[in-house]
Amino acid sequence: MESRAKHGFDGTQGAVNQGKSDLGRKPRSVSVHDIVLRLVALATTLVAAVVIGVAKQTKTVSIQLSPTGPSMPVPVVAKTAYSSAFVYFLVANVIACVYSAISLAISTAKRASRSNLPLLFSIVDIAMVALLFSGNGAAMTFGLLGAHGNSHLQWKKVCNVFEKFCFDVAVAGIVSMLGSLAYVLLVLLAIVSLHKRSP
Amino acid sequence: MESRAKHGFDGTQGAVNQGKSDLGRKPRSVSVHDIVLRLVALATTLVAAVVIGVAKQTKTVSIQLSPTGPSMPVPVVAKTAYSSAFVYFLVANVIACVYSAISLAISTAKRASRSNLPLLFSIVDIAMVALLFSGNGAAMTFGLLGAHGNSHLQWKKVCNVFEKFCFDVAVAGIVSMLGSLAYVLLVLLAIVSLHKRSP
Repeated sequence: MESRAKHGFDGTQGAVNQGKSDLGRKPRSVSVHDIVLRLVALATTLVAAVVIGVAKQTKTVSIQLSPTGPSMPVPVVAKTAYSSAFVYFLVANVIACVYSAISLAISTAKRASRSNLPLLFSIVDIAMVALLFSGNGAAMTFGLLGAHGNSHLQWKKVCNVFEKFCFDVAVAGIVSMLGSLAYVLLVLLAIVSLHKRSP
Repeated sequence: MESRAKHGFDGTQGAVNQGKSDLGRKPRSVSVHDIVLRLVALATTLVAAVVIGVAKQTKTVSIQLSPTGPSMPVPVVAKTAYSSAFVYFLVANVIACVYSAISLAISTAKRASRSNLPLLFSIVDIAMVALLFSGNGAAMTFGLLGAHGNSHLQWKKVCNVFEKFCFDVAVAGIVSMLGSLAYVLLVLLAIVSLHKRSP
Protein backbone atom coordinates (compact mmCIF):
# COMPACT_ATOMS: atom_id res chain seq x y z
CA MET A 1 0.00 0.00 0.00
CA GLU A 2 1.34 3.42 -0.90
CA SER A 3 0.53 6.80 0.53
CA ARG A 4 2.19 10.10 -0.30
CA ALA A 5 3.69 12.31 2.38
CA LYS A 6 1.74 15.56 2.48
CA HIS A 7 4.32 17.73 4.15
CA GLY A 8 6.26 19.37 1.38
CA PHE A 9 8.29 19.24 -1.77
CA ASP A 10 9.49 16.11 -3.38
CA GLY A 11 12.51 16.31 -5.64
CA THR A 12 14.22 13.35 -7.22
CA GLN A 13 13.69 11.36 -4.11
CA GLY A 14 9.95 11.72 -4.41
CA ALA A 15 7.36 11.41 -1.70
CA VAL A 16 7.75 8.88 0.99
CA ASN A 17 5.91 5.63 0.72
CA GLN A 18 4.72 4.78 4.17
CA GLY A 19 4.31 1.10 3.39
CA LYS A 20 6.56 -1.89 3.81
CA SER A 21 10.26 -1.76 2.98
CA ASP A 22 12.03 -4.36 0.88
CA LEU A 23 15.64 -3.36 1.35
CA GLY A 24 15.73 -1.76 4.78
CA ARG A 25 14.72 1.62 3.30
CA LYS A 26 11.25 2.98 2.85
CA PRO A 27 10.54 2.69 -0.88
CA ARG A 28 9.88 6.02 -2.58
CA SER A 29 7.40 6.85 -5.29
CA VAL A 30 8.23 9.39 -7.97
CA SER A 31 6.66 12.80 -7.31
CA VAL A 32 4.61 14.84 -9.75
CA HIS A 33 7.13 17.69 -9.41
CA ASP A 34 9.87 15.38 -10.57
CA ILE A 35 7.98 14.20 -13.65
CA VAL A 36 6.87 17.72 -14.61
CA LEU A 37 10.34 19.23 -14.20
CA ARG A 38 11.96 16.44 -16.23
CA LEU A 39 9.32 16.94 -18.92
CA VAL A 40 10.05 20.68 -18.96
CA ALA A 41 13.80 19.96 -19.14
CA LEU A 42 13.25 17.46 -21.98
CA ALA A 43 11.06 19.83 -23.99
CA THR A 44 13.19 22.95 -23.51
CA THR A 45 16.56 21.33 -24.21
CA LEU A 46 15.06 19.59 -27.25
CA VAL A 47 13.67 22.86 -28.62
CA ALA A 48 16.93 24.70 -27.86
CA ALA A 49 19.02 21.99 -29.56
CA VAL A 50 16.79 21.87 -32.64
CA VAL A 51 16.56 25.67 -32.99
CA ILE A 52 20.34 26.18 -32.69
CA GLY A 53 21.06 23.03 -34.69
CA VAL A 54 19.12 24.11 -37.79
CA ALA A 55 19.81 27.85 -37.46
CA LYS A 56 21.32 29.10 -40.69
CA GLN A 57 20.99 32.29 -42.70
CA THR A 58 22.40 33.31 -46.06
CA LYS A 59 22.45 36.95 -47.08
CA THR A 60 23.83 38.72 -50.10
CA VAL A 61 25.89 41.76 -49.25
CA SER A 62 27.71 44.22 -51.47
CA ILE A 63 31.46 44.14 -51.03
CA GLN A 64 33.90 46.54 -52.68
CA LEU A 65 36.95 44.43 -53.57
CA SER A 66 39.20 47.43 -54.27
CA PRO A 67 38.95 51.15 -53.29
CA THR A 68 38.32 52.24 -56.86
CA GLY A 69 36.52 49.15 -58.19
CA PRO A 70 32.80 48.44 -58.30
CA SER A 71 30.97 46.71 -55.44
CA MET A 72 29.99 43.08 -56.01
CA PRO A 73 27.16 41.05 -54.48
CA VAL A 74 28.62 38.27 -52.35
CA PRO A 75 26.58 35.63 -50.47
CA VAL A 76 27.55 35.38 -46.78
CA VAL A 77 26.43 32.62 -44.45
CA ALA A 78 25.82 32.46 -40.69
CA LYS A 79 25.51 29.01 -39.13
CA THR A 80 26.05 27.32 -35.81
CA ALA A 81 29.15 25.42 -36.92
CA TYR A 82 31.03 28.70 -37.38
CA SER A 83 31.11 29.28 -33.62
CA SER A 84 32.63 26.85 -31.12
CA ALA A 85 30.47 28.49 -28.44
CA PHE A 86 27.27 27.62 -30.31
CA VAL A 87 28.54 24.08 -31.00
CA TYR A 88 29.25 23.64 -27.28
CA PHE A 89 25.78 25.03 -26.47
CA LEU A 90 24.25 22.55 -28.95
CA VAL A 91 26.17 19.58 -27.53
CA ALA A 92 25.27 20.57 -23.95
CA ASN A 93 21.57 20.72 -24.80
CA VAL A 94 21.66 17.43 -26.72
CA ILE A 95 23.31 15.68 -23.76
CA ALA A 96 20.79 17.22 -21.33
CA CYS A 97 17.92 16.28 -23.65
CA VAL A 98 19.01 12.63 -23.92
CA TYR A 99 19.52 12.40 -20.16
CA SER A 100 16.14 14.07 -19.54
CA ALA A 101 14.44 11.44 -21.72
CA ILE A 102 16.23 8.55 -20.00
CA SER A 103 15.62 9.81 -16.46
CA LEU A 104 11.99 10.63 -17.28
CA ALA A 105 11.42 7.14 -18.69
CA ILE A 106 12.93 5.51 -15.62
CA SER A 107 11.10 7.85 -13.24
CA THR A 108 7.70 7.18 -14.81
CA ALA A 109 8.38 3.44 -14.79
CA LYS A 110 9.08 3.83 -11.03
CA ARG A 111 12.07 1.60 -11.35
CA ALA A 112 13.99 3.97 -9.08
CA SER A 113 11.76 3.46 -6.11
CA ARG A 114 13.81 0.82 -4.28
CA SER A 115 17.31 1.49 -5.55
CA ASN A 116 20.05 4.09 -5.48
CA LEU A 117 18.84 5.52 -8.79
CA PRO A 118 17.32 8.65 -7.15
CA LEU A 119 20.77 9.42 -5.73
CA LEU A 120 22.34 8.79 -9.14
CA PHE A 121 19.73 11.07 -10.73
CA SER A 122 20.55 13.88 -8.31
CA ILE A 123 24.27 13.54 -9.05
CA VAL A 124 23.72 13.71 -12.82
CA ASP A 125 21.18 16.53 -12.30
CA ILE A 126 23.95 18.64 -10.73
CA ALA A 127 26.22 17.83 -13.68
CA MET A 128 23.43 19.01 -15.99
CA VAL A 129 23.20 22.32 -14.09
CA ALA A 130 26.94 22.87 -14.60
CA LEU A 131 26.86 21.77 -18.24
CA LEU A 132 23.82 23.82 -19.25
CA PHE A 133 24.82 27.00 -17.43
CA SER A 134 28.32 26.94 -18.94
CA GLY A 135 26.73 26.40 -22.37
CA ASN A 136 24.31 29.27 -21.78
CA GLY A 137 27.15 31.55 -20.68
CA ALA A 138 29.15 30.66 -23.77
CA ALA A 139 26.27 31.12 -26.22
CA MET A 140 25.11 34.34 -24.56
CA THR A 141 28.60 35.83 -24.79
CA PHE A 142 28.92 35.00 -28.48
CA GLY A 143 25.37 36.20 -29.14
CA LEU A 144 25.98 39.53 -27.38
CA LEU A 145 29.19 40.01 -29.36
CA GLY A 146 27.21 39.33 -32.53
CA ALA A 147 24.59 41.87 -31.48
CA HIS A 148 26.88 44.65 -30.26
CA GLY A 149 30.39 43.79 -31.39
CA ASN A 150 33.40 45.02 -29.42
CA SER A 151 34.75 48.41 -30.45
CA HIS A 152 37.95 48.00 -28.40
CA LEU A 153 38.93 44.91 -30.40
CA GLN A 154 37.37 46.10 -33.67
CA TRP A 155 35.04 43.09 -33.74
CA LYS A 156 32.07 44.38 -35.69
CA LYS A 157 28.49 43.41 -34.86
CA VAL A 158 26.85 41.06 -37.35
CA CYS A 159 23.26 40.86 -36.12
CA ASN A 160 22.35 43.88 -38.26
CA VAL A 161 23.01 41.55 -41.23
CA PHE A 162 21.92 38.19 -39.79
CA GLU A 163 18.74 39.24 -37.95
CA LYS A 164 17.01 35.86 -38.29
CA PHE A 165 20.03 33.85 -37.18
CA CYS A 166 20.53 36.08 -34.14
CA PHE A 167 16.83 35.83 -33.30
CA ASP A 168 17.09 32.01 -33.41
CA VAL A 169 20.11 32.12 -31.10
CA ALA A 170 18.23 34.35 -28.65
CA VAL A 171 15.22 32.00 -28.66
CA ALA A 172 17.42 28.94 -28.14
CA GLY A 173 19.25 30.70 -25.30
CA ILE A 174 16.06 31.69 -23.48
CA VAL A 175 14.50 28.24 -23.89
CA SER A 176 17.68 26.51 -22.75
CA MET A 177 17.77 28.77 -19.69
CA LEU A 178 14.33 27.43 -18.73
CA GLY A 179 15.71 23.89 -18.98
CA SER A 180 18.69 24.87 -16.84
CA LEU A 181 16.35 26.29 -14.19
CA ALA A 182 14.33 23.05 -14.28
CA TYR A 183 17.50 21.15 -13.33
CA VAL A 184 18.29 23.67 -10.58
CA LEU A 185 14.79 23.07 -9.19
CA LEU A 186 15.20 19.27 -9.44
CA VAL A 187 18.37 19.43 -7.32
CA LEU A 188 16.81 21.94 -4.92
CA LEU A 189 13.65 19.90 -4.37
CA ALA A 190 15.68 16.73 -3.88
CA ILE A 191 17.68 18.42 -1.12
CA VAL A 192 14.60 19.95 0.52
CA SER A 193 12.84 16.57 0.41
CA LEU A 194 15.82 14.71 1.84
CA HIS A 195 16.32 17.39 4.50
CA LYS A 196 12.72 16.98 5.66
CA ARG A 197 13.05 13.20 5.72
CA SER A 198 16.36 13.11 7.61
CA PRO A 199 16.15 12.55 11.38
CA MET B 1 28.68 14.64 23.77
CA GLU B 2 29.38 14.52 20.08
CA SER B 3 30.51 11.66 17.93
CA ARG B 4 30.93 11.70 14.16
CA ALA B 5 29.20 9.17 11.97
CA LYS B 6 31.86 7.06 10.25
CA HIS B 7 29.83 5.78 7.40
CA GLY B 8 30.48 8.15 4.55
CA PHE B 9 30.62 11.59 3.09
CA ASP B 10 29.37 14.67 4.81
CA GLY B 11 28.39 17.65 2.73
CA THR B 12 26.80 20.76 4.03
CA GLN B 13 24.79 18.75 6.44
CA GLY B 14 27.90 17.40 8.12
CA ALA B 15 28.23 14.28 10.19
CA VAL B 16 25.50 13.25 12.52
CA ASN B 17 25.77 14.10 16.14
CA GLN B 18 24.52 11.14 18.04
CA GLY B 19 23.88 13.16 21.20
CA LYS B 20 20.78 14.82 22.54
CA SER B 21 18.50 16.86 20.31
CA ASP B 22 17.25 20.32 21.21
CA LEU B 23 14.68 20.89 18.48
CA GLY B 24 13.39 17.45 17.67
CA ARG B 25 16.25 16.90 15.18
CA LYS B 26 19.62 15.40 15.85
CA PRO B 27 22.04 18.35 15.86
CA ARG B 28 24.75 18.14 13.20
CA SER B 29 28.40 19.07 13.40
CA VAL B 30 30.19 20.59 10.43
CA SER B 31 32.33 18.07 8.54
CA VAL B 32 35.97 18.49 7.59
CA HIS B 33 35.01 18.06 3.92
CA ASP B 34 32.67 21.01 4.20
CA ILE B 35 35.29 23.30 5.74
CA VAL B 36 38.00 22.26 3.26
CA LEU B 37 35.75 22.69 0.22
CA ARG B 38 34.54 26.12 1.37
CA LEU B 39 38.17 27.12 1.98
CA VAL B 40 39.08 25.94 -1.54
CA ALA B 41 36.10 27.84 -2.98
CA LEU B 42 37.06 30.98 -1.02
CA ALA B 43 40.70 30.86 -2.11
CA THR B 44 40.06 30.05 -5.77
CA THR B 45 37.28 32.59 -6.34
CA LEU B 46 39.36 35.23 -4.51
CA VAL B 47 42.42 34.52 -6.69
CA ALA B 48 40.28 34.43 -9.87
CA ALA B 49 38.58 37.72 -8.98
CA VAL B 50 41.84 39.48 -8.13
CA VAL B 51 43.68 38.16 -11.23
CA ILE B 52 40.90 39.16 -13.64
CA GLY B 53 40.21 42.37 -11.69
CA VAL B 54 43.74 43.77 -12.00
CA ALA B 55 44.51 42.26 -15.43
CA LYS B 56 45.60 45.05 -17.76
CA GLN B 57 48.18 45.32 -20.51
CA THR B 58 49.31 48.26 -22.60
CA LYS B 59 51.26 47.68 -25.81
CA THR B 60 52.53 50.03 -28.47
CA VAL B 61 51.70 48.91 -31.98
CA SER B 62 52.49 50.51 -35.33
CA ILE B 63 49.41 51.64 -37.21
CA GLN B 64 49.41 53.04 -40.75
CA LEU B 65 46.78 55.77 -40.74
CA SER B 66 46.63 56.05 -44.56
CA PRO B 67 47.74 53.68 -47.37
CA THR B 68 50.56 55.97 -48.45
CA GLY B 69 51.40 57.60 -45.12
CA PRO B 70 53.99 56.53 -42.55
CA SER B 71 53.16 54.10 -39.72
CA MET B 72 52.79 55.63 -36.26
CA PRO B 73 53.30 54.05 -32.85
CA VAL B 74 49.97 53.95 -30.99
CA PRO B 75 49.46 52.64 -27.45
CA VAL B 76 46.65 50.04 -27.20
CA VAL B 77 45.17 48.77 -23.97
CA ALA B 78 43.54 45.47 -22.96
CA LYS B 79 41.62 45.42 -19.71
CA THR B 80 38.76 43.55 -18.10
CA ALA B 81 36.29 46.44 -18.34
CA TYR B 82 36.42 46.23 -22.15
CA SER B 83 34.54 42.91 -22.13
CA SER B 84 31.13 42.39 -20.56
CA ALA B 85 31.95 38.65 -20.37
CA PHE B 86 35.01 39.33 -18.21
CA VAL B 87 33.05 41.79 -16.06
CA TYR B 88 30.34 39.15 -15.51
CA PHE B 89 33.04 36.58 -14.67
CA LEU B 90 34.56 39.03 -12.16
CA VAL B 91 31.20 39.78 -10.52
CA ALA B 92 30.34 36.06 -10.33
CA ASN B 93 33.62 35.26 -8.60
CA VAL B 94 33.30 38.20 -6.19
CA ILE B 95 29.79 37.07 -5.20
CA ALA B 96 30.97 33.47 -4.76
CA CYS B 97 34.01 34.65 -2.78
CA VAL B 98 31.92 36.75 -0.37
CA TYR B 99 29.42 33.92 0.10
CA SER B 100 32.27 31.42 0.62
CA ALA B 101 33.69 33.61 3.39
CA ILE B 102 30.31 34.04 5.09
CA SER B 103 29.35 30.35 4.88
CA LEU B 104 32.84 29.30 6.04
CA ALA B 105 32.66 31.63 9.03
CA ILE B 106 29.24 30.31 10.02
CA SER B 107 30.27 26.69 9.42
CA THR B 108 33.39 26.95 11.55
CA ALA B 109 31.43 28.68 14.29
CA LYS B 110 29.05 25.66 14.15
CA ARG B 111 26.10 28.00 14.36
CA ALA B 112 24.37 25.91 11.71
CA SER B 113 24.24 22.79 13.78
CA ARG B 114 20.71 23.14 15.14
CA SER B 115 19.01 25.26 12.49
CA ASN B 116 17.93 25.21 8.87
CA LEU B 117 21.16 26.92 7.82
CA PRO B 118 22.64 23.73 6.28
CA LEU B 119 19.59 23.58 3.99
CA LEU B 120 19.98 27.28 3.17
CA PHE B 121 23.69 26.70 2.46
CA SER B 122 22.85 23.88 0.03
CA ILE B 123 20.34 26.08 -1.79
CA VAL B 124 22.84 28.93 -2.17
CA ASP B 125 25.57 26.40 -3.09
CA ILE B 126 23.47 25.33 -6.10
CA ALA B 127 23.04 28.99 -7.07
CA MET B 128 26.84 29.36 -6.90
CA VAL B 129 27.26 26.36 -9.25
CA ALA B 130 24.95 28.02 -11.79
CA LEU B 131 26.55 31.46 -11.37
CA LEU B 132 30.16 30.30 -11.56
CA PHE B 133 29.67 27.91 -14.49
CA SER B 134 27.84 30.55 -16.54
CA GLY B 135 30.66 32.99 -15.73
CA ASN B 136 33.28 30.43 -16.74
CA GLY B 137 31.45 29.70 -20.00
CA ALA B 138 31.27 33.41 -20.78
CA ALA B 139 34.92 34.15 -19.97
CA MET B 140 36.15 31.03 -21.78
CA THR B 141 34.24 31.98 -24.92
CA PHE B 142 35.66 35.51 -24.95
CA GLY B 143 39.14 34.19 -24.13
CA LEU B 144 39.05 31.65 -26.97
CA LEU B 145 37.89 34.34 -29.38
CA GLY B 146 40.81 36.47 -28.25
CA ALA B 147 43.20 33.57 -28.78
CA HIS B 148 41.89 32.34 -32.14
CA GLY B 149 39.55 35.01 -33.49
CA ASN B 150 36.71 34.03 -35.82
CA SER B 151 37.57 34.07 -39.50
CA HIS B 152 33.93 33.77 -40.59
CA LEU B 153 33.06 37.05 -38.85
CA GLN B 154 36.45 38.67 -39.47
CA TRP B 155 37.06 39.04 -35.75
CA LYS B 156 40.84 38.98 -35.49
CA LYS B 157 42.69 37.29 -32.65
CA VAL B 158 44.34 39.66 -30.18
CA CYS B 159 46.27 37.33 -27.89
CA ASN B 160 49.29 37.56 -30.22
CA VAL B 161 49.49 41.20 -29.10
CA PHE B 162 48.22 40.92 -25.51
CA GLU B 163 50.00 37.73 -24.38
CA LYS B 164 50.18 38.69 -20.70
CA PHE B 165 46.54 39.75 -20.49
CA CYS B 166 45.40 36.51 -22.17
CA PHE B 167 47.63 34.49 -19.83
CA ASP B 168 46.01 36.20 -16.83
CA VAL B 169 42.55 35.41 -18.22
CA ALA B 170 43.50 31.74 -18.68
CA VAL B 171 44.85 31.53 -15.12
CA ALA B 172 41.73 33.17 -13.69
CA GLY B 173 39.51 30.80 -15.73
CA ILE B 174 41.30 27.65 -14.55
CA VAL B 175 41.36 28.77 -10.91
CA SER B 176 37.68 29.74 -11.02
CA MET B 177 36.85 26.34 -12.50
CA LEU B 178 38.40 24.73 -9.40
CA GLY B 179 36.13 26.90 -7.23
CA SER B 180 33.12 25.89 -9.34
CA LEU B 181 33.99 22.22 -8.87
CA ALA B 182 34.30 22.79 -5.12
CA TYR B 183 30.68 23.99 -5.10
CA VAL B 184 29.58 21.00 -7.21
CA LEU B 185 31.24 18.73 -4.63
CA LEU B 186 29.59 20.60 -1.73
CA VAL B 187 26.14 20.01 -3.25
CA LEU B 188 26.99 16.41 -4.16
CA LEU B 189 28.28 15.53 -0.70
CA ALA B 190 25.26 17.18 0.93
CA ILE B 191 22.95 14.98 -1.15
CA VAL B 192 24.97 11.81 -0.53
CA SER B 193 25.05 12.54 3.20
CA LEU B 194 21.31 13.26 3.36
CA HIS B 195 20.56 10.18 1.26
CA LYS B 196 22.48 7.97 3.70
CA ARG B 197 20.74 9.55 6.67
CA SER B 198 17.22 9.32 5.28
CA PRO B 199 15.12 6.34 6.41
